[in-house]
Amino acid sequence: MTTKVARKPGEAKGPEAYAKEYAETIMIDALEYSMWNRERFEELRAGGVTCVHVTLAVWEDARETLSAVGEWLQLFDEHKDLVMRARSVADIHAAKKSNRTAIIFGFQNTSPFEDEINLFGVFHELGVRIVQLTYNIQNHIASGCWEKNDTGLSTVYGRDAIREMNRVGLMIDLSHCNERTCLDTIEYSLKPVALTHANPLTFVGGGVELAVRNKSDKVLKALTENGGVVGLSNYPRMAPNGENVSLQDFCDMMAWTVDLVGIEHVGIGTDIYIGREHRTSWFRTGRWSRAPKVAMRPAVKFPDWLASPAQFPNLYAGLRNTGFSQSEVGAILGGNWMRLFDQTFSPST
Amino acid sequence: MTTKVARKPGEAKGPEAYAKEYAETIMIDALEYSMWNRERFEELRAGGVTCVHVTLAVWEDARETLSAVGEWLQLFDEHKDLVMRARSVADIHAAKKSNRTAIIFGFQNTSPFEDEINLFGVFHELGVRIVQLTYNIQNHIASGCWEKNDTGLSTVYGRDAIREMNRVGLMIDLSHCNERTCLDTIEYSLKPVALTHANPLTFVGGGVELAVRNKSDKVLKALTENGGVVGLSNYPRMAPNGENVSLQDFCDMMAWTVDLVGIEHVGIGTDIYIGREHRTSWFRTGRWSRAPKVAMRPAVKFPDWLASPAQFPNLYAGLRNTGFSQSEVGAILGGNWMRLFDQTFSPST
Repeated sequence: MTTKVARKPGEAKGPEAYAKEYAETIMIDALEYSMWNRERFEELRAGGVTCVHVTLAVWEDARETLSAVGEWLQLFDEHKDLVMRARSVADIHAAKKSNRTAIIFGFQNTSPFEDEINLFGVFHELGVRIVQLTYNIQNHIASGCWEKNDTGLSTVYGRDAIREMNRVGLMIDLSHCNERTCLDTIEYSLKPVALTHANPLTFVGGGVELAVRNKSDKVLKALTENGGVVGLSNYPRMAPNGENVSLQDFCDMMAWTVDLVGIEHVGIGTDIYIGREHRTSWFRTGRWSRAPKVAMRPAVKFPDWLASPAQFPNLYAGLRNTGFSQSEVGAILGGNWMRLFDQTFSPST
Repeated sequence: MTTKVARKPGEAKGPEAYAKEYAETIMIDALEYSMWNRERFEELRAGGVTCVHVTLAVWEDARETLSAVGEWLQLFDEHKDLVMRARSVADIHAAKKSNRTAIIFGFQNTSPFEDEINLFGVFHELGVRIVQLTYNIQNHIASGCWEKNDTGLSTVYGRDAIREMNRVGLMIDLSHCNERTCLDTIEYSLKPVALTHANPLTFVGGGVELAVRNKSDKVLKALTENGGVVGLSNYPRMAPNGENVSLQDFCDMMAWTVDLVGIEHVGIGTDIYIGREHRTSWFRTGRWSRAPKVAMRPAVKFPDWLASPAQFPNLYAGLRNTGFSQSEVGAILGGNWMRLFDQTFSPST
């Protein structure tokens, strides 16, 4: 384990003490999967969230994903006072300026492309910017964290898919992929890649329910040495101390990860999914199985210090109280994602 | 029949005599349905075509249309020296400036929306700008020119669809609709509508194979009084003198139509479909029937003076020789479409 950099926490202050600093911060949550409606958007505004990456598909096919895009167009139209689309960092700056939350479309799986290479570009046209290669299991392209055989990026279509995502401007997300797929993709991709929502396995340890989702030091180092960013999550199943994860536990995990990979390579990706709890069987097995594949208790509560995006000011205070400077917290909460988005969202020329 | 405006044809000159004038012209063909490849694009460039409206769907559903969009993205990428996308009149001006042909995506049917109101906006996002309500037969929205009962725009979903097309920025095309649907839509639409490819029934007469496709004076007047444009076609099945249609016959039809509706309301929409002749059973009955519904000889040749877009300079000369001024021909060949595109391609605010 890397030696911890000495930080000098000052007096523990509440979020009110940092209100002015926080108002200047670009706050990006790199993964939320809530059922979106006006109440959710109001929470984003209450929490000063500048930008959130939302999930349009986990197992959905092309046609189903078109409907998801259509529903979002309607949401943007009905709630234009609170949210706007983002296809670029310029759009995120515009959202900050107009006191709205920028929404970035993403997929947690490559299922919407239906193994048709042209559809990567078609969905980029529809505003999709972040795509995870697979969701837990093996597909044509990659392998997931639930598989027993640690196979990697597939060497035929998988490599073509990476090149196509590099070419059309889709940021590659490896959060639910397995070790070998992560390493292969980091090496093969021409652009930096992301873990939008995953934690360090070494720090959290093997005792949490979804330890399998967390990433080794080797993956974290390879990804970040290549320019990537890892978004840490307070999802209790994969967080330090599990359901008892405290704000300080989370901030300590942040400090540990920063020590491992550097301040420029860590962000936030909560995985908050308010209102979608009843659909867990869809997340877990889609249409491909009748039997649950991973033993999990049915419900899990996000910790009360960050159960909703309205509570991000708590996290800001927690990080400042842990000894991170204002500019360091700015990098963690948004600056690092902005850099990576800027590098990956545009087509190659 | 309206009295013909006296025109003063001068000496009949060849297209070379008008080469300089033609080079300044914005030339728009409001409907071609060819199988697109480099050879076709080279014909467009040889013919000085600034812009062409292409068909992505006649009976295709949403998923199939996504593939069509994907194929076009590939074509744009591979032939960027010859063609570019157009979503607006600004793009058409940019194409003219860079000596390329601007491609506008359109549907000849509402089938890609699969009766899902949000998908109008989704396909607008993908660059679709022109949509015909139905292709020859009755659907949920409209009725077609092959139906025996002259029913109109459906009063429930049909009206909603018109409002949605007005709202998201889709130009409505009535070319294959029946009389009543045309009149209802012209009245109900908040924006001018188009006949991208149809001829005046009165001028052409009932003797041609597809007389049923041509439009009454009543429809032509209502459409144009509302700001719309009718694109005349040299498709022999619906042109004056059928397969014997001469350049002069076509120019006389143009003069007659201009006399009826005014110079600001007439354009060109050839309906040329090079390379797709073997797919006529798909156009005619899609997947909904095994039996042909309209007796037609299997093949038809476009007239040799305009069988390919490379020959548009012939049409320019023909219209000038018929007595139209340079600015009048400019309106007919592109100016009128530019005005209508500008009025209809953007979302309502």
